[in-house]
Amino acid sequence: MLTLDKIYHASYVLKDVVRETKIVEAPKINPDCRVYLKPECLQHTGSFKLRGSGYMISQLSDEEKSKGVIACSAGNHAQGVALAATKYGIKSLICLPDGAPISKVEATKNYGAEVCMVKGVYDDAYNKAIELKEKHGYTFVHPFDDINVIAGQGTIGLEIINEIPDADAVVVPIGGGGLISGVAFAIKKLNPNCKVYGVQASGAPSMYNSIRDGHIEHLDKVSTIADGIQVKEPGENTFKLVQEYVDEIVTVSEDEISSAILALIEHQKMVAEGAGAVSVAAVMFNKLPIKGKKVVCVVSGGNIDVTILSRVIKRGLMNTGRSASLVIELMDKPGQLELVSRVIAQHGGNVTSVHHERASEIQDINGCYLRLVLETKNFDHIKEIEEALKSEGIKIV
Amino acid sequence: MLTLDKIYHASYVLKDVVRETKIVEAPKINPDCRVYLKPECLQHTGSFKLRGSGYMISQLSDEEKSKGVIACSAGNHAQGVALAATKYGIKSLICLPDGAPISKVEATKNYGAEVCMVKGVYDDAYNKAIELKEKHGYTFVHPFDDINVIAGQGTIGLEIINEIPDADAVVVPIGGGGLISGVAFAIKKLNPNCKVYGVQASGAPSMYNSIRDGHIEHLDKVSTIADGIQVKEPGENTFKLVQEYVDEIVTVSEDEISSAILALIEHQKMVAEGAGAVSVAAVMFNKLPIKGKKVVCVVSGGNIDVTILSRVIKRGLMNTGRSASLVIELMDKPGQLELVSRVIAQHGGNVTSVHHERASEIQDINGCYLRLVLETKNFDHIKEIEEALKSEGIKIV
Repeated sequence: MLTLDKIYHASYVLKDVVRETKIVEAPKINPDCRVYLKPECLQHTGSFKLRGSGYMISQLSDEEKSKGVIACSAGNHAQGVALAATKYGIKSLICLPDGAPISKVEATKNYGAEVCMVKGVYDDAYNKAIELKEKHGYTFVHPFDDINVIAGQGTIGLEIINEIPDADAVVVPIGGGGLISGVAFAIKKLNPNCKVYGVQASGAPSMYNSIRDGHIEHLDKVSTIADGIQVKEPGENTFKLVQEYVDEIVTVSEDEISSAILALIEHQKMVAEGAGAVSVAAVMFNKLPIKGKKVVCVVSGGNIDVTILSRVIKRGLMNTGRSASLVIELMDKPGQLELVSRVIAQHGGNVTSVHHERASEIQDINGCYLRLVLETKNFDHIKEIEEALKSEGIKIV
Repeated sequence: MLTLDKIYHASYVLKDVVRETKIVEAPKINPDCRVYLKPECLQHTGSFKLRGSGYMISQLSDEEKSKGVIACSAGNHAQGVALAATKYGIKSLICLPDGAPISKVEATKNYGAEVCMVKGVYDDAYNKAIELKEKHGYTFVHPFDDINVIAGQGTIGLEIINEIPDADAVVVPIGGGGLISGVAFAIKKLNPNCKVYGVQASGAPSMYNSIRDGHIEHLDKVSTIADGIQVKEPGENTFKLVQEYVDEIVTVSEDEISSAILALIEHQKMVAEGAGAVSVAAVMFNKLPIKGKKVVCVVSGGNIDVTILSRVIKRGLMNTGRSASLVIELMDKPGQLELVSRVIAQHGGNVTSVHHERASEIQDINGCYLRLVLETKNFDHIKEIEEALKSEGIKIV
C-alpha cells in the first residue's frame, strides 16, 4: 500500500541516485498566472523514470538482486532501469522491439543494461520479457503499476512542496499514471488545498477516458509525438490513485504539444520531449482553471529524438504565426515573381524558401504555382501580407 | 582602470538584476576530463550581456540617465541593454540594420527598448547610432570595449571561483573580448594557477590573429554560425587584457560548433547558440591541454534562431556518424530498391528518406540515382553498410 512514509523513505534512499532538480520560473508561458517548471528533463537519463525504478530495485531482497531485473521498453523506462540497476550493482536485461530507434538502444546499453532485441512490436517484446523472467527468475520492473515505483516518482511531489510550499496547482503528464499517482498522493497528503491536474495527449487518452467512464478502458490505437506517454491502458493501482487524488484531467493536441516544446526551447533554453511538454501545453493554452495562480508544471523528460525536434520546431513556428506557407497561382509571364517579392518585402515578411512549379495537370497551361515559406511576426502579420497580395490581384490558393 | 574591487562592486550592484546561474556538471562532453558548464544561456535575455550593460548603466550619472542610452546591435547586446535600461527605469534606443531577423527585433522591443531600423548593414546602423548620440546626448553603450561593461562580465569569474574553487581551467568564448577580459581578470587575480583559455570561431578569428601577431588586426570578412562572436576587430582595452591575462586562444570549425550544440541538446537538454557553444566545442574536440583536469566552460548564450537550430541538428548528426547520406547508382530494373533496402536493414541501418531520380543528362539512359538518408550508429557502422552494399555489386557514387 502507498503511504507517505514510503515516499519519504524513497526520497532518503534515492539521495545518492537521483539529482534534486531545481524548480525554475517560466514567466513567458502564460501571462495570466505564475508558472514554475520542475525540470525532470535535467534528471540523470533525461527523465524522472530513474526515481521509480531506483527505489523499486533498492527494495529487492539480496536473492532477487543476485538474479537481476528485466524490463520491457524502448524509451525512458529502459534507461531508468538500466542506470538504477548499474548503480545498485545488479544485472539488468531490457527487451526491446527490433524497430526501436538506434539512439534509444545505444543509450540503454551505455547505462549498463544487456539488451534483447525482439522481432515484432512492443507486445512481442513484453511477452519475451515475461518468458525470460519465468525462465531465469529475474524480477520484472513494471513501468508504472507498482507501489514502489509509484513511491519513487512521488519524491517529485515532496521536492515541489519543499521548494514552492504555497503552490496553488501542480500539473503532471499522464501515460500509465505512475508519475501522477505518486506526485498527487504526496501533495494531497501534505497540502490538500493544492490542486493536482493531469494531462494526456489527445492521441492517447487512456486515463482520461477511463476516469471519465469510471472504469479502466483499453485503447486499441494510440498515436502521438509524446511517445513517452503513449500508453494504451492505465494500471489498476494508478487508476485507483488517480481517481482518488487527481482533481481533473485534460488533453492537449499535437500542435499544442509542439508549441510548448518550442516555447521551452526559446524562452527557457530547455529541451523537453513531447511527454514532458504536455503539462506546459495545458497551461499555455488555458486548459485549466489557473488564472492568477501559482502553478508548477512537471516537465517529466527531455529525451526527444533530435530529428523529431527539427520537425517540431517547423510545426511550432507555423502554429504561432511566425512562419507561413503560401501557395500563389501566377500567370507565367515576366515580372510576376518580382511583384510578389516586392509586396512581401514592403510588409516586412522575410522569404526563406521559394518553390516554383509549372507542370501540373489541373491548371491553366500558362499558369504556375509559387510555394513560399515566410518568416512572419504573428497571425495578424500573415493576414496583412495576404491582403496586400490580394489587392495587387495575386491569387492565393 | 579595471580592478577586482570594480568587479566585486558590479556583483553587488547586479544582485537584483541578474540571475546567479548555477554551474552544472556535463559528464559526457569529454571522457578525459571533468567538465562543468556555467550556463549563461539561462541568464535573463538568454545571454551574459545583461551583466555588462547592467553595471555600465547603473554607474551613469543622474543627468546621463535622464537622457537615456543608445546602442547598436542586432543580437544579445541589444536585448541586454534594453532590459538593463528598463530595470533602471531609463530610456533606451537600439539601432539595427534593416535586415535584422524579425525575432531579434521583436525581442528587443519586448524588453522595453525603442528600435530604430537603419537601411544597410551593421556599420550603417553604428554610424546612425553615433549620429543620434551626438544629436540628443544619449550615452553610447559599447558592446565590449568599456571598463564597466568588462567589470560586469567579470562577475561570471567570481561566481565560477565561488562554486568551483579548485577549477584547473576556465574556457571562454571570444567575440570582441569583453566577456573573457572580465572573467580572466577576476580569476587570475584570485587564483593565478587556474588557466583561462579563449575560443573563437575559425570564421572570425580577430582576437586570435591579433594576439598571435602582437597588435590589433581588422578582418574584412567574418562568417560563422556563431553570430554572437562574429566580430571584425577586438577592442583596445580587451586586446590588452587578453594579452595579459589569457593563457591561450584556439579556434573551432563550424562543424565542431554544430556538434557541440547538438551534444548540449542531447546530453544536457540545454539550448546554446553557436557563440555559447564554442567553449564546449574546444573541450569536446581536444583543442586544449586539459586531460585529467577540472574544466569550466562558459556557455555564454542560448539565443539561437530556431530555424538555424534545425539545420545545426541535421549537420551535427552527419558529423557524428549518426546520419548518413548515400547516393547510389542503380540500373533501372525491378528488384533494385528491394535489394538495397534489404542489405541496409540486415546491417541495422534505418532509412529515413528516399529520393529516386531518373531524369539526368549525365548518366546511362537506363540508370537512375537513389538518394538515401540513413539513421546510423557511428562512422564504423556507415562503413559497414557501404561495404555490404558494394559486395552486392551496388555502386555508391
